[in-house]
Amino acid sequence: MVAVAKTVQKELTVLIPVDQGALSTLSDSMQYSALGGGKRLRPFLLMESAAMFNVPTRQSVRVAAAVELIHCYSLVHDDLPAMDNDDLRRGEPTNHKIFGEATAILAGDGLLTLAFEILNRPDTKIDSEIRSQLSHGLAQAAGMAGMIGGQAIDLHAENHSLNLSEITRLQQLKTGSLFGFCVEAGTILGSATSKDRAALAGYAQALGLAFQITDDLLDVEGNQDKIGKSVRKDDDAGKATFVSLLGVAEARSKAQTLIEQSIACLAHFNGRAEMLRDVAQFVVSRSH
Amino acid sequence: MVAVAKTVQKELTVLIPVDQGALSTLSDSMQYSALGGGKRLRPFLLMESAAMFNVPTRQSVRVAAAVELIHCYSLVHDDLPAMDNDDLRRGEPTNHKIFGEATAILAGDGLLTLAFEILNRPDTKIDSEIRSQLSHGLAQAAGMAGMIGGQAIDLHAENHSLNLSEITRLQQLKTGSLFGFCVEAGTILGSATSKDRAALAGYAQALGLAFQITDDLLDVEGNQDKIGKSVRKDDDAGKATFVSLLGVAEARSKAQTLIEQSIACLAHFNGRAEMLRDVAQFVVSRSH
Repeated sequence: MVAVAKTVQKELTVLIPVDQGALSTLSDSMQYSALGGGKRLRPFLLMESAAMFNVPTRQSVRVAAAVELIHCYSLVHDDLPAMDNDDLRRGEPTNHKIFGEATAILAGDGLLTLAFEILNRPDTKIDSEIRSQLSHGLAQAAGMAGMIGGQAIDLHAENHSLNLSEITRLQQLKTGSLFGFCVEAGTILGSATSKDRAALAGYAQALGLAFQITDDLLDVEGNQDKIGKSVRKDDDAGKATFVSLLGVAEARSKAQTLIEQSIACLAHFNGRAEMLRDVAQFVVSRSH
Repeated sequence: MVAVAKTVQKELTVLIPVDQGALSTLSDSMQYSALGGGKRLRPFLLMESAAMFNVPTRQSVRVAAAVELIHCYSLVHDDLPAMDNDDLRRGEPTNHKIFGEATAILAGDGLLTLAFEILNRPDTKIDSEIRSQLSHGLAQAAGMAGMIGGQAIDLHAENHSLNLSEITRLQQLKTGSLFGFCVEAGTILGSATSKDRAALAGYAQALGLAFQITDDLLDVEGNQDKIGKSVRKDDDAGKATFVSLLGVAEARSKAQTLIEQSIACLAHFNGRAEMLRDVAQFVVSRSH
């Protein structure tokens, strides 16, 4: 994952405009939240899926950067006082703690808009039909029927407790749709067969849920210094999570089962899917 | 303009998802701000520019709807307490006054994302190369080098006074870029000559500034009931505007000169540009 993270970091550094004049605060704020690290898990999924179909890196890295911009904008907006009101992200102050709420709102809007700008630049070397398909898929995954929808259900959950099937739907929208888009983008770029598309979609769906259950476990058991964000927030907010509904032991076992399911979806790819199997193991074993 | 407003309203009504379940608040909030009226000036500019090059309405209305979604999201976010903190828009309570800040932030994000989704749906009957060009142009006009950049300079202006050339740049970014995209979209859809593109770009640039100067005049002289939003906000906030820098009489004369300039750009279109001339006259004579 380190090599992909470096490649994406380089791409993002070039793509996010620098400004020394009247736009310098906005530009600093966008860079702060997009270049400040993170696991770059979504770019990894996207680029490794694309690599399985021999898509050139210069094409897949652009789409990976677009997805990462969407992910970063969502964190900036989710951390706002009116939303989750978080002070800490990746071990550093959140965007609005540094730049103020107004700039954080604009920077989030700017990162979101930039994702669609860079995906449609003529220099991508990606065929325009594919660019348009990718723009459509990314907007669906990030929009009301995907990530934003999940966030809206999450907001609502502060007022009434969700059951297990509702939590599962929430997380499939909030985290799962963007994971799903990452592997889908690989198959679109690589003109994969429908069998391969379905296999990767199954992989991403199980992986996304396992990722979220592990997040919930880290929120309960984790160390704030290691995770880099506030812990036990969900519990304090009285929100239902996989862990509060299932208990620690069953949640951990469910995450493990989901990872086995996700890996099972990759069977017919044989050695080509080695990296995707590794990342699945990483997702449940991580400590941050 | 009434016919275009109706056509766009119909398109937006179909395109914004309705939800009766867990996403109903988000969906209501998005509909509230996108279907609640407004002059639909940007869709008019876009569809009339496209009509000059014989672009079918079923194509241009989709792009017009995308631009209007961008415009509506920007109003929702600009009205937030951390931004302009406005309670009134188009004579009705602003989005966050009805749905709360968190939902208003998400609804804005949702409308912004939806713009790129509907622009890239396969059902647009627009060639994919054109769809991608339009997505790129819209993202540029709405992003850091356009509308969001203008908004960022505007924020900054609360702390130090801008001079006339800085105000002009601010407004060219904040309002002008989206106006510019509207006429550009017409020329992209209609494969216009570079002479026609340049003429319409000149028209939109002068029109955008005249529009903003008129807004500043209405802010000083207007009637809150008629305009439907709070007046004298800029003055109260100590913000420099065209009117505070030039005085009422000179500002009105500048707006009139700009409208004459914008109409002069249309000369070689003869009768084909009648609607665009009419809208230019409307922009400076309007009372809301």
